[in-house]
Amino acid sequence: MTDSKRTILVVNDDGFEARGLEAMVSIAKNFGNVTVVVPDRTRSGMGHAITMNEPLRLTNYKNEGGIAYWRTNGTPVDCVKLGEKVLLRDKKIDLVLSGINHGSNSSVSLIYSGTMAAAIEASFSNMPAIGISVLDYSPDADFNSAVHFGKIIVEKALTNGIPTGICLNVNIPKVSLEEIKGIKVTRQCDGVWHEELEERIDAFGRKYYWLSGYLEHKEFEPDTCEWALHNKFVSVQPVQYDLTAHKYISSFKFLEL
Amino acid sequence: MTDSKRTILVVNDDGFEARGLEAMVSIAKNFGNVTVVVPDRTRSGMGHAITMNEPLRLTNYKNEGGIAYWRTNGTPVDCVKLGEKVLLRDKKIDLVLSGINHGSNSSVSLIYSGTMAAAIEASFSNMPAIGISVLDYSPDADFNSAVHFGKIIVEKALTNGIPTGICLNVNIPKVSLEEIKGIKVTRQCDGVWHEELEERIDAFGRKYYWLSGYLEHKEFEPDTCEWALHNKFVSVQPVQYDLTAHKYISSFKFLEL
Repeated sequence: MTDSKRTILVVNDDGFEARGLEAMVSIAKNFGNVTVVVPDRTRSGMGHAITMNEPLRLTNYKNEGGIAYWRTNGTPVDCVKLGEKVLLRDKKIDLVLSGINHGSNSSVSLIYSGTMAAAIEASFSNMPAIGISVLDYSPDADFNSAVHFGKIIVEKALTNGIPTGICLNVNIPKVSLEEIKGIKVTRQCDGVWHEELEERIDAFGRKYYWLSGYLEHKEFEPDTCEWALHNKFVSVQPVQYDLTAHKYISSFKFLEL
Repeated sequence: MTDSKRTILVVNDDGFEARGLEAMVSIAKNFGNVTVVVPDRTRSGMGHAITMNEPLRLTNYKNEGGIAYWRTNGTPVDCVKLGEKVLLRDKKIDLVLSGINHGSNSSVSLIYSGTMAAAIEASFSNMPAIGISVLDYSPDADFNSAVHFGKIIVEKALTNGIPTGICLNVNIPKVSLEEIKGIKVTRQCDGVWHEELEERIDAFGRKYYWLSGYLEHKEFEPDTCEWALHNKFVSVQPVQYDLTAHKYISSFKFLEL
């Protein structure tokens, strides 16, 4: 299974102290030489943010088991750029693995996700990329199922190949390994975050707002990620980066001059 | 043209001091009652980032011409949430206008754009939304063409309606009003940012990296945004938020268990 010639970049959005990072490294090291570049703090919900207005720092904070670990003040997408353009600039990156994320990236959460933005960024440069997330936001989330199915999916994807411009969004239900029923290839479920901006008062009497909320799926068809996850299947979604609403192009022709 | 009953939210990603904001307000006030919520500094390239790990502040920094101007430490997407869930929570928002952005949001720049992420966020909640950008990063960019065509597009879109879940990505070429040849409805051009992470040394002898680069379009078909803009047309793109690579779902069935 191991191919010592493969160059693998591991990134995440939960930062260098996240347990999900160790879990992802335990998958990655089966498939090649691993370099880790991750944020120096939690950067959840960063979407496709990049750092344009301040300097990026890059620090080698650990070397362990033949793996160099680097952290940066940048975003998850910056981690991919730093891996590609700085640390591994003389190599062809064969695989980018992002995560394992603490929390779901199903439905519309995909858009807000730093984990998946990093995988999408890799796909811009034709690097095969897979983001993996578990449906458990806890720092002590159980990664057993994710590591088990992550290895299977990475191996199959490397063997069969991931087409140019595509990456994979893998979500693992919050159940024990024995309870998982299998793997489904799904489409993004339409949904919306019902959010509250709770008004609070700080120690100086000034108002502030704290974001909270929950995801509501607007549909629940059997070919969607949400259906698969609710029914204890691992969801694997091929993801692309064209946001054009193609079927509406002709209906907006009235705007042309 | 004015409908005093319409409720309009104006947001941006260049912050409260950007000249593009004044230009957008000059469009918006023709169509209804305007509320402005913008970042308290430049937040370009923020993609769909949201603020989950720190308190959001919201300050009323100006009231002028019947328009309340608010600024926040949050991201462009947070601006939409604060407008919808806090300032205008008792109203139905009829239109969200984002920009006018200093710089292009054509091709793959759409993914990195805070301006367009704000418009996409509005479309999650079924608020009609239009992002407008000019192909000029300069703080002193000329907004004449953008204001002229922005008014035309907003009026037509309000009259004809924007379908649920769709928003519009409007880009204005960097030429004088007289030189613009018309308006084209386009699709997102495939492209990639060729980036350098320039290595520099700070005053304390420590390395840092500064992101720079240029967009390369991978195609140049006449139905794309890049073609339209290079040929001096305004580009209007219907945008949706499903990232599924639908045509690859069946080809990944080998992953199913």
